[in-house]
Amino acid sequence: MKFYDMALAPSPRRVRMFIAEKGIDIPVVQVDLRGGEHLRPEFAKLNPWCTVPVLELDDGTCISEAIACCRYLEAAFPEPPLMGATPVEQGVIAMWEHRVEWDGFIAGAEMLRNSAERLKGRALTGAESFEQIPELAERGRKRIAVLYEMLDKRFGESEYLAGDSFTVADITALIAIDFVRRQKLEIPEERPHVQRWHDAISARPSAQL
Amino acid sequence: MKFYDMALAPSPRRVRMFIAEKGIDIPVVQVDLRGGEHLRPEFAKLNPWCTVPVLELDDGTCISEAIACCRYLEAAFPEPPLMGATPVEQGVIAMWEHRVEWDGFIAGAEMLRNSAERLKGRALTGAESFEQIPELAERGRKRIAVLYEMLDKRFGESEYLAGDSFTVADITALIAIDFVRRQKLEIPEERPHVQRWHDAISARPSAQL
Repeated sequence: MKFYDMALAPSPRRVRMFIAEKGIDIPVVQVDLRGGEHLRPEFAKLNPWCTVPVLELDDGTCISEAIACCRYLEAAFPEPPLMGATPVEQGVIAMWEHRVEWDGFIAGAEMLRNSAERLKGRALTGAESFEQIPELAERGRKRIAVLYEMLDKRFGESEYLAGDSFTVADITALIAIDFVRRQKLEIPEERPHVQRWHDAISARPSAQL
Repeated sequence: MKFYDMALAPSPRRVRMFIAEKGIDIPVVQVDLRGGEHLRPEFAKLNPWCTVPVLELDDGTCISEAIACCRYLEAAFPEPPLMGATPVEQGVIAMWEHRVEWDGFIAGAEMLRNSAERLKGRALTGAESFEQIPELAERGRKRIAVLYEMLDKRFGESEYLAGDSFTVADITALIAIDFVRRQKLEIPEERPHVQRWHDAISARPSAQL
């Protein structure tokens, strides 16, 4: 198996952290996104959507999309469970994970891709060119304020995002928040529960990678 | 268990079709989205994001987000498997499902919510108001053209979206396409493989609901 990664990008970090929490060792290939390596035909053979992360299995099967990489790894390496043991846990974790991807990760990507000079014409990932929409970057800032409010309520009631234990939902949430923090949307002082949770998750060895 | 549904909305149709494919029977509660029932405090207790579908379990746990409802049902009612039996199947199905949600479902929602007169101030779901961004509706049309091209290539090689058998990825894709067809983006004549697949999936009893 090979893991196609890019050290500075948030999406592959989700899978990198998941792999570390599982305690498994997978050879890593760094993809030069800034040099456009992901848009070349050789990479499109691995992933026609031209994104990282990708897991290339020994039989040649390639799995892209961060949550799908995690799903494969969860099934292939069940311990420790990060996506739930019982049906209820599986459903609740999937709910929080999917929601925080949308409210945090996608909002953060819309902010960055619709404002950064170097991403002109690259407002969406993939081989097609899409122009930036500045209003979308602005909307993202409002969405993140809503997200922080929601998460603060949640972490006032629950130690981890999906309940009493650490799961893939915490991974997606941590990386979404670090992504928007890099865009100068720090955790607001009036959201202490988010800060408590962020400190705890950030202290895990898997979060250092 | 109860299933909070809305007959005309695309997201709950994903779970409705999944339930029918599993052959299970769950009491349905229709939520009056046009009357704003999903924005009232009683509904927000079930789902703070104010969306359908929601599954309310007998212990009071509520699961929202369509794919998370499916994940719970898949674990609780494993036969027939719709999200994969082996680790590789699980990963590949999750990849296609997640991708077609983004390229089809989200693009379709952006088209509708950023253009329909009745959705002014409702460009995103949930309790917060977000103004429409007309360029986003326009961008959605281009995204759907790209999606049709990608799906035609895929269905020229594969009977179903994620491989040799019907899965949740076909459900999400069918409903995404029916959603954009209602917005006058019919399957183009030059995409015969999409039409072949659409005819086959549409003929399933679960697709009539």
